[in-house]
Amino acid sequence: MGKRKFASDNASGIHPDILKSIIQANQGHAIAYGNDIYSEKAVTVFKEHFGNDIAVFFVLTGTASNVLSINQITSPYHSVIVAASAHQQVHECGAPERFSGCKYLPVYTKDGKLNPDLIMPHLVELGDIHHSQPKVVSISQPTEMGTLYLEEEIKQLSDFVHKHNMYLHLDGARLANAAVALNKNLYDITIGAGVDVISFGGTKNGMLMGEAVIFADKTLADDFEYYRKQAMQLASKMRFLAAQFIAYFENNLWQKNAAHANKMANFFYNKIKNIPEIEVVYKVETNGLFVRIPKSIIQVMQAESFFYVFDEQESIVRWMCSFDTTEEDIIQFVELLKKSIEQYVS
Amino acid sequence: MGKRKFASDNASGIHPDILKSIIQANQGHAIAYGNDIYSEKAVTVFKEHFGNDIAVFFVLTGTASNVLSINQITSPYHSVIVAASAHQQVHECGAPERFSGCKYLPVYTKDGKLNPDLIMPHLVELGDIHHSQPKVVSISQPTEMGTLYLEEEIKQLSDFVHKHNMYLHLDGARLANAAVALNKNLYDITIGAGVDVISFGGTKNGMLMGEAVIFADKTLADDFEYYRKQAMQLASKMRFLAAQFIAYFENNLWQKNAAHANKMANFFYNKIKNIPEIEVVYKVETNGLFVRIPKSIIQVMQAESFFYVFDEQESIVRWMCSFDTTEEDIIQFVELLKKSIEQYVS
Amino acid sequence: MGKRKFASDNASGIHPDILKSIIQANQGHAIAYGNDIYSEKAVTVFKEHFGNDIAVFFVLTGTASNVLSINQITSPYHSVIVAASAHQQVHECGAPERFSGCKYLPVYTKDGKLNPDLIMPHLVELGDIHHSQPKVVSISQPTEMGTLYLEEEIKQLSDFVHKHNMYLHLDGARLANAAVALNKNLYDITIGAGVDVISFGGTKNGMLMGEAVIFADKTLADDFEYYRKQAMQLASKMRFLAAQFIAYFENNLWQKNAAHANKMANFFYNKIKNIPEIEVVYKVETNGLFVRIPKSIIQVMQAESFFYVFDEQESIVRWMCSFDTTEEDIIQFVELLKKSIEQYVS
Amino acid sequence: MGKRKFASDNASGIHPDILKSIIQANQGHAIAYGNDIYSEKAVTVFKEHFGNDIAVFFVLTGTASNVLSINQITSPYHSVIVAASAHQQVHECGAPERFSGCKYLPVYTKDGKLNPDLIMPHLVELGDIHHSQPKVVSISQPTEMGTLYLEEEIKQLSDFVHKHNMYLHLDGARLANAAVALNKNLYDITIGAGVDVISFGGTKNGMLMGEAVIFADKTLADDFEYYRKQAMQLASKMRFLAAQFIAYFENNLWQKNAAHANKMANFFYNKIKNIPEIEVVYKVETNGLFVRIPKSIIQVMQAESFFYVFDEQESIVRWMCSFDTTEEDIIQFVELLKKSIEQYVS
Repeated sequence: MGKRKFASDNASGIHPDILKSIIQANQGHAIAYGNDIYSEKAVTVFKEHFGNDIAVFFVLTGTASNVLSINQITSPYHSVIVAASAHQQVHECGAPERFSGCKYLPVYTKDGKLNPDLIMPHLVELGDIHHSQPKVVSISQPTEMGTLYLEEEIKQLSDFVHKHNMYLHLDGARLANAAVALNKNLYDITIGAGVDVISFGGTKNGMLMGEAVIFADKTLADDFEYYRKQAMQLASKMRFLAAQFIAYFENNLWQKNAAHANKMANFFYNKIKNIPEIEVVYKVETNGLFVRIPKSIIQVMQAESFFYVFDEQESIVRWMCSFDTTEEDIIQFVELLKKSIEQYVS
Repeated sequence: MGKRKFASDNASGIHPDILKSIIQANQGHAIAYGNDIYSEKAVTVFKEHFGNDIAVFFVLTGTASNVLSINQITSPYHSVIVAASAHQQVHECGAPERFSGCKYLPVYTKDGKLNPDLIMPHLVELGDIHHSQPKVVSISQPTEMGTLYLEEEIKQLSDFVHKHNMYLHLDGARLANAAVALNKNLYDITIGAGVDVISFGGTKNGMLMGEAVIFADKTLADDFEYYRKQAMQLASKMRFLAAQFIAYFENNLWQKNAAHANKMANFFYNKIKNIPEIEVVYKVETNGLFVRIPKSIIQVMQAESFFYVFDEQESIVRWMCSFDTTEEDIIQFVELLKKSIEQYVS
Repeated sequence: MGKRKFASDNASGIHPDILKSIIQANQGHAIAYGNDIYSEKAVTVFKEHFGNDIAVFFVLTGTASNVLSINQITSPYHSVIVAASAHQQVHECGAPERFSGCKYLPVYTKDGKLNPDLIMPHLVELGDIHHSQPKVVSISQPTEMGTLYLEEEIKQLSDFVHKHNMYLHLDGARLANAAVALNKNLYDITIGAGVDVISFGGTKNGMLMGEAVIFADKTLADDFEYYRKQAMQLASKMRFLAAQFIAYFENNLWQKNAAHANKMANFFYNKIKNIPEIEVVYKVETNGLFVRIPKSIIQVMQAESFFYVFDEQESIVRWMCSFDTTEEDIIQFVELLKKSIEQYVS
Repeated sequence: MGKRKFASDNASGIHPDILKSIIQANQGHAIAYGNDIYSEKAVTVFKEHFGNDIAVFFVLTGTASNVLSINQITSPYHSVIVAASAHQQVHECGAPERFSGCKYLPVYTKDGKLNPDLIMPHLVELGDIHHSQPKVVSISQPTEMGTLYLEEEIKQLSDFVHKHNMYLHLDGARLANAAVALNKNLYDITIGAGVDVISFGGTKNGMLMGEAVIFADKTLADDFEYYRKQAMQLASKMRFLAAQFIAYFENNLWQKNAAHANKMANFFYNKIKNIPEIEVVYKVETNGLFVRIPKSIIQVMQAESFFYVFDEQESIVRWMCSFDTTEEDIIQFVELLKKSIEQYVS
């Protein structure tokens, strides 16, 4: 089997340029908790991409970036409207509820994307003290299905959300892949389109570890640092998170990595789209493929090269490409797929 | 207008027998926090109705009885499956999430009733540490739409729930109305049918204030008293809650009150079922009516005799009968309804 | 034994005037959750005593009044400075921490009273994100030892607290007893002296159940009603809380009841002060006595007439008088005390 | 000035052997969240040091290791007894209270060390539902003052704690320094001495980032992985935490690093002990010095080489040595000290 698997982009390692930046930052002492020159520079780099009005903070996991984003812009009597497929709803083990105290309102969607019509029915009993008050709409870009919001769709959402006195949060664990796929810069599809808070992911696109919470307007970020500490997310040797982000933005590494992963997903798609026993169920817009495959081959394939089942009932699996996926990896995997079908599907 | 309105059964006052029992308990001193003869007797009375294996605790609000029930049988990484219309989901301002830390999974239903087929899709990713683990199914009896689970339906649910290593909780804020409507005793439609924990309501059926949490098996109730205290639900002058429950069960007052309220709802239904401009949208099984009425008459009627809108979009209002509703009250209200239609509906 | 014991003032029942007011409010229907004429009137009555700028809310237990007070004026990264003997610190089972998320900083005192010198050492690491930031000083008036803050002492504390950008909270579970003892009105020793939030107790001084949270300035109370609901403290038949408070203030019942309880404590003190085997350890300023008695007689006396041990190590017990304590009760109890000493103390 | 400062051992960088291990683990793909060969090996390595019965989990910050330790062995109605100087009490911004819901009971000590006599007064009102029930005693080894518990003292504490049906937690953010100073292995001064749960630190002794929670008995660790995820502490690229721990234990790196830091502190101590204007206030047993210096020189020295003030009132500062501190660094710093005294102290 190929050396690289398709379980997740976070099964990949550290991009060499990121690693090099860590090594370079490993010089002498630096005051802990972010009072160092690397952290200062990383903030500057973020401002180049997201504008000078932002406040940006580094945290340790994707779940933390979501939880701390939501916690910052809500009170415990608020509710958060998300797609039923959202990471926060499905794969954060209730961390958002436990830390923020808020209620989550899952909205069922076709493709992981919210829109005003889907949100509207949840904007009820406003001002009624018995009812958790809607305060945040949170979208994922790309969605958990790998689908994308267009810039215009985000604008429409943010207009709608702001009109109802709410905030728009964007879970951008794979925001780089979205930006590249849409051929947009990071600003235009986020803050430029009215997003208030962004969970910005680095880990899945070549970093060792590192996520950021970005507030469009620094006045939203008052006291955030206390909450980061209280949420156990304040790294002492912060310079090594910062150094990664510096390298991530240098020479457009974020774009190159994401573009490569997206391209590999497209290559992958072309290799399998004509196999009659399988069906690619969502449009391949970024770096993931969601494929209905025969139930009988799932386990045998997983044994060779592990991947996750996305929807057991529907026999849909998820194959993710990453910054280091090669055509050779895909070719070998597709061979495994074809062989498995041949052997186990009558 | 009639003296009694249809806003809610908790707009009613205190039944004279309950009040008398409070007055009788107002003799001399009694050790606080439940160590008194009234509390002891009230527990005995509950055991007569729910069996000797129960543990029962008195709390102050319906929300508290639900929150403390759920908190007791979950850990914060669990999820709770409820109808999307459930009181816990819609009208407890996120108290269950905030206190228990759990995730709530709302299930959309036709009539407020859950069944195994509706629950099944939520029993996924079991054992996956990223996913809140389903631990409780909570049903309302009667539902928020006034509909009922049959004894067999509850048995089927409890079998299903227990088979999946979960608990069945029953929100019985109006359990008396359900029991009377089904012509069952309290045990058979709850613990006898496999329910693990019950929120038992008294306030809506003639008490000043008082709810109870009942555990089918006292081993489930370990340390509950600490949580009741921590949830700010430990009344000091507990005897006055206990005295109410004693009277509530004496001479079958709970049954008489509920039977009267149900009968009034039926009387009400018969008075309006043939009015062409309105539609009773759920079967009138207990003491509430859910009625689609012309949007144009809602405010004018509310001004005369306040009631709640149940579904604004659908123009469905809720009219509740209580232990003290009279035929005269209903007749006057129906007159108001007819007059309003005549005046404001062309 | 006398009919009334000395375990606690909350072992007493309901004052007849309060009960009468409940009965009078039990007329017809009233919209639930506080939208009724009794609640409206009760608020007016509170404003007569605490000023027109207040916001006042009724809750169900003393713990709830403290927890909701603190929750309202803090963020979870704040700390609350209290006497180590404070009810919040010792007898609320961690409810303040669990609901507010705040850290409690107990300060050891001689007599339950805080002062700027005792508080000062805790005002450290201000602005340091690793450290819970002090935001509230909470005092009890009277203290758990029955001692009192003079009006000037409260003023001094509020000046100090405000100078450090904090709030002053006052736990007034027995505020009536303090006001009477100090011969002051309720305003002068609270809001007039700079207190920001008051937990105002009614239960221990003749009510069935009922506490209030009073904000000196209504702008502090934004969204409080959501938190009250989320804290499971919103009573549906609110009129019966309100009716009690109306009676409580009518004809100065609060004063009469408290004055009587204080007077009885003084009578009690005079009956025992010369018994050589015991020692009254705190000045008897309100309605409680804290008395060091021989260890050997504690259990035998408790068996006859239950009371609480205040400090086991020091063999100090607490005897509380209430609005209905009689001289006869005290005389009989003192006889029991003397007899027990005679029998069990060599 | 020397390249390395004395602000904290976490101002140091990554030890070259640790960095090398990260680089070596950066080969191909590895399933995320700990299902990789590095994580497996790291667990094995921990068992070699702490025994085969342990369960060990990697987390991201020291605060997280403490919070998750405590959360695992408590219910929210419990209390945790700590030294008033403990990191959990002073420098975790209330994270333990917010996540666990527990009350913290700070105990004032001379040197940061607890003992049964200091704990005993807090073991009161056991079984009383109004009172948070003591469940954990948490000690720091070394303490925040750099002082040490002897093996016998820990045994005495664990006996005492277990006799009272509580757990003993040990905050070992710098456990390596303690073990080396005591000339003991890691087992003997922790699990061998009766400790139930350990927060084991790596970051301050040469790692990039990485802490571990170790349970003496794996049955204590049920469901811990859900809580780690819910606490936002589950790293996706776990292999890079594991690889660090592997290197940390290989060739006794943990010992060498800690021994060097301790030795440097001793060297430092010998250089300053005779300076009359200053006073070393705690015995230098590990890698930190706590020194009373003239107030007038603090800021001028900090400007040259930043360090923290430990006790402002008492003018005590903290100087920490780390694995990479050199004699040259110390000599230069002591020169700065002497020069500052000369210039600013009359």
